[in-house]
Amino acid sequence: MNHPQTFRDLHHGDGPLLLPNAWDFASGAALAQAGFPAVGTTSLGVAAAAGKTDATGDARDETLVLARDLARLPVPVTVDIEGGFSTRVADVAELATELASYGIAGLNLEDGRSDGTLAPLDHQTTVIAAVKRAAPQLFLNARTDTFWLAGGEPDMAETLRRVRAFAEAGADGVFVPGIAADGDVRAVVEAVDLPLNALFMPGKTEVGRLAGLGVRRISTGSLLFRKALQAAVGSALEVAGTTTEAPAFSYGDVQALVSR
Amino acid sequence: MNHPQTFRDLHHGDGPLLLPNAWDFASGAALAQAGFPAVGTTSLGVAAAAGKTDATGDARDETLVLARDLARLPVPVTVDIEGGFSTRVADVAELATELASYGIAGLNLEDGRSDGTLAPLDHQTTVIAAVKRAAPQLFLNARTDTFWLAGGEPDMAETLRRVRAFAEAGADGVFVPGIAADGDVRAVVEAVDLPLNALFMPGKTEVGRLAGLGVRRISTGSLLFRKALQAAVGSALEVAGTTTEAPAFSYGDVQALVSR
Repeated sequence: MNHPQTFRDLHHGDGPLLLPNAWDFASGAALAQAGFPAVGTTSLGVAAAAGKTDATGDARDETLVLARDLARLPVPVTVDIEGGFSTRVADVAELATELASYGIAGLNLEDGRSDGTLAPLDHQTTVIAAVKRAAPQLFLNARTDTFWLAGGEPDMAETLRRVRAFAEAGADGVFVPGIAADGDVRAVVEAVDLPLNALFMPGKTEVGRLAGLGVRRISTGSLLFRKALQAAVGSALEVAGTTTEAPAFSYGDVQALVSR
Repeated sequence: MNHPQTFRDLHHGDGPLLLPNAWDFASGAALAQAGFPAVGTTSLGVAAAAGKTDATGDARDETLVLARDLARLPVPVTVDIEGGFSTRVADVAELATELASYGIAGLNLEDGRSDGTLAPLDHQTTVIAAVKRAAPQLFLNARTDTFWLAGGEPDMAETLRRVRAFAEAGADGVFVPGIAADGDVRAVVEAVDLPLNALFMPGKTEVGRLAGLGVRRISTGSLLFRKALQAAVGSALEVAGTTTEAPAFSYGDVQALVSR
């Protein structure tokens, strides 16, 4: 099977690609078995499973090991590589080459940095171009964290500037986690001629609405990992016979759980 | 904190020790945070997370890495080492020494082998004695798979012969997964002067009943891992808007998921 081509095609089906994100081999295999046509990874889950924090660039080894394992799934796999685990362009290109050699179909590359800033745009476009040169068959989903890092007040002008520059640099898709409002989604869809990936956020991003607005890929990010964690604790509390409800785990809760 | 001593004491509290089993750092940390006084590991979960089958001795490296990470939890941690990942006595003793050096509080050592047979009893008692010599501070929970491997017809005479021999060899506790009937539990409790560990099995082993029969430790085995997997798939199906129920994962389902 040509996973990269299959994966590319999945962005141009009747509806958007619903992409669930795994954090270990078992979760990836279970999602593929459940009928999902492709599987992504969640960097929060991969890092937390290993006792590391997300978005700090520490989980490169675990990401590679998992990618190599997931590559044996019968469906295309796309890997979240945070910001590439390095600020050196050549390192990120080398990582992409490595992933492609496993038979991985795509990757997510983000511009958010662990200090809460965005990578300079010219650096990010240089990385994107280098990754595409190194591994042209990989579907490069270029993510901007303008919404993530801004909290409540995302800078749409900067968002549009970035997704346009990512497209120009050779990205195959753009990802704006946090985007939800109709107007914002429409603006990005109109700005670039590439599939837009939005993050599923319970109560905020209804799949049907996003589909109608032209979103071509909807991913679950760390949601499944956090739900799994909650289910594990909930089952344990049930066995113990306590009436305590298992807590829901937010992104920040998981980061706190693993921080030293 | 002296985790091994704390862990030992937990087997002699008012009620039995309710021990939840983790498969990665995040699940272990979440269970500790939820208030469980100690955390174990599940070899099925650890192996499946890495895309490997359980009880085949293949997950030694992953088990050690996880143990080293979990050792930083604020509660005692006991590690499931399957049959010791080797039939060589010295290898198992060396593994125990390594785990003790991390600050791990205990380990589970089973006599079931991947070919569905039980290790010869004299071999198993030799391993138990060697592990205790190598790492006397570790709480050695000696597990017999007489119920596991027999399916419906466990040989109680062999079970009693084994737990008595394990106790004689220096085990700190005995574990008979699959044991459920009052008479069977009573027989083991009377046979050895060591804490008996039973496996929690939904609908078969009520905590209150086991406690009344003298069980001193009740562990969840792979249950939490399997519930987490089900929750992940369930959440993904819910996002996708399908009405399909997420499947429950049995031990065999998980083994099938990861087999090549």
